Amino acid sequence: MASNHEVKLIIAASERDSNLYYATQFLAPDPFIFAEIRGRKILVMNELELDRARTQARAHEVIPTSKIVRKLRDRGVKPITTTEIIHFLLKERGTHRLLVPADFPIEYADGLRAKGYHIRFKQDPFFEERLIKHKKEVEAICKTQRQTERAVREAIRILKKAKIKGRCLIYKGKKLTSEYIKQVINVSLMKSGCIAAHTIIACGKQGVDPHNQGQGLLHAHESIIMDVFPHSSHTRYFADMTRTVVRGKASDKLKRMHRAVREGQEIAFSRIRDGADGGKIHEAIFRHFERLGFKTGEIGGRMQGFFHGTGHGVGLDIHEPPRISRGRDILRAGQVVTVEPGLYYLDAGGIRIEDMVLVTKTGCKNLTKFPKILEL
Amino acid sequence: MASNHEVKLIIAASERDSNLYYATQFLAPDPFIFAEIRGRKILVMNELELDRARTQARAHEVIPTSKIVRKLRDRGVKPITTTEIIHFLLKERGTHRLLVPADFPIEYADGLRAKGYHIRFKQDPFFEERLIKHKKEVEAICKTQRQTERAVREAIRILKKAKIKGRCLIYKGKKLTSEYIKQVINVSLMKSGCIAAHTIIACGKQGVDPHNQGQGLLHAHESIIMDVFPHSSHTRYFADMTRTVVRGKASDKLKRMHRAVREGQEIAFSRIRDGADGGKIHEAIFRHFERLGFKTGEIGGRMQGFFHGTGHGVGLDIHEPPRISRGRDILRAGQVVTVEPGLYYLDAGGIRIEDMVLVTKTGCKNLTKFPKILEL
Repeated sequence: MASNHEVKLIIAASERDSNLYYATQFLAPDPFIFAEIRGRKILVMNELELDRARTQARAHEVIPTSKIVRKLRDRGVKPITTTEIIHFLLKERGTHRLLVPADFPIEYADGLRAKGYHIRFKQDPFFEERLIKHKKEVEAICKTQRQTERAVREAIRILKKAKIKGRCLIYKGKKLTSEYIKQVINVSLMKSGCIAAHTIIACGKQGVDPHNQGQGLLHAHESIIMDVFPHSSHTRYFADMTRTVVRGKASDKLKRMHRAVREGQEIAFSRIRDGADGGKIHEAIFRHFERLGFKTGEIGGRMQGFFHGTGHGVGLDIHEPPRISRGRDILRAGQVVTVEPGLYYLDAGGIRIEDMVLVTKTGCKNLTKFPKILEL
Repeated sequence: MASNHEVKLIIAASERDSNLYYATQFLAPDPFIFAEIRGRKILVMNELELDRARTQARAHEVIPTSKIVRKLRDRGVKPITTTEIIHFLLKERGTHRLLVPADFPIEYADGLRAKGYHIRFKQDPFFEERLIKHKKEVEAICKTQRQTERAVREAIRILKKAKIKGRCLIYKGKKLTSEYIKQVINVSLMKSGCIAAHTIIACGKQGVDPHNQGQGLLHAHESIIMDVFPHSSHTRYFADMTRTVVRGKASDKLKRMHRAVREGQEIAFSRIRDGADGGKIHEAIFRHFERLGFKTGEIGGRMQGFFHGTGHGVGLDIHEPPRISRGRDILRAGQVVTVEPGLYYLDAGGIRIEDMVLVTKTGCKNLTKFPKILEL
């Protein structure tokens, strides 16, 4: 019973694989097999997950691994590998063509090809529909975003209350640190069921390296970048927001940078809509910065200026397609993307401001509701 | 300049790939290239991570992606893919043989094979030495474990304080829920720099499904399984502990199950040592349960008894080799493994008790310091 039908196959732990979680709506810590055959979703699960999968997973059929293992053993198959289990599953359904994600493991690819399967891989988005968010998904993202705002509000309240002593910020008798503010934010998020990892609280020169998470003392009169991107432990959807503040007086250059970055965001907001070219939006912001005299390039061996993308999709992954960057991704209504231009100079500090917007037919809707105030 | 030397190659985001983090001690959210050529570790990083990688990563050389991209562009290569970048890197070092992890993405495997590379994959442990923990690694695991114990202690304090009203537990005027206790534990952990996900607080029948995280009301006189497995956001090392308690009176069956499971642990503790066979240890516990009348198998369509492994390695991943289960993994001094037998019956509830031990030359050292008391 040969067939030209292409089977979608994923082998992964859905806790770490958003495509698999999206397809099954089922979270499991250990790898399991997912096959979509002519629209029917079939899972092969170990006994430990069987009951839970049968009640929770969006699938047409949940087969216990042990059942297939028993049949293979009866037939004298040795050793019984994941490849053999998949082969058993697919053989009786008469299909030899597989479509897998680009990160499909070489181990199974080699095993299945050795058995005669034709495997084609597909770059993300493996499920095209994942990029276009349904109403419920947008709501989930917004909910995570509201908790993010609550957490950052708490951090800003503390920064405002802190007393300035020389370069230091004193709160409750102690010098304020990056670690303390991160803890305030992460604990606030955990209390509302969100998990934040790698929250960035980067002061002064630390902030010039956009991926530096920050550590040690927070200083008065210097830029403090706060980049927070948790996901809900219930819905799994992420949010992503950045604000930059100065407790005390910001330098003129920082003020000009802050204004320029806000203007950069406005350029994006005015251009984002169904069909817009992400590359052109990024370029327009870049040119705006150049016009204002904010050059980009290596200065003294360090990258300075605006040297990251303008934005990225957000959903079950913190970084999803499309990108608003040098690439040429076309935006589509229903996508949720960040808009996060930044400027970074060693002689001034770093400024990054980030909102999330929903792309619509005619424009975009800002999902972020948080002020952009530099000086506290 | 042909060579038979096999290059170790990983392409991943070290935040999600423990092998890459282990090799580089560098956390990055986006994928980068790692190649180990004749003992020299080479990273190819994008500009955003370059400065941080050069100061933090354990590598002999950090090459900016842009530098290779520029050279490829000069040579007219189009399109410039990750495969082309790796090919450029390896070609000038005259090597064609690659060793990659078993989860190496098919995308790069196909690309590199099309260019003539011979690729062999290796199951975990990709770096054999990862399983044998150094003193510093054991310390990191113990530190995460101490924070875990602190968090569970807080939860138990609340359960003890709760008043019993009928089947309900009342704390501060409200009915205690699984969600509330999870939050107490996860917030306590977050305060001490640890990230807990999927903490299990499963009461009564929920606990009979070992992967059910639990939800809703916690009941008096029923088993409450508390399984907590956070990792430190600083060191990245995990800990893993389970305790089962009853607020109120435990049934006789639950008491017998609790005793049997504790005895099961003791069987493991007395047998674990360098060279011991994990399969035999698991079997011995299984037989002990059977002797006591605690049978395992499907009853009324549900798996009941002792139907998961006895333990697993813990380190940068929550589940690492070796397993103490039906497989035949041989334990080695320096490994850190869990010992977590359990018994699950729909007519009684679930009991699981889990400690972490360090395998030594002559036995094992329990790294967990927390009482095993059933009734609160």
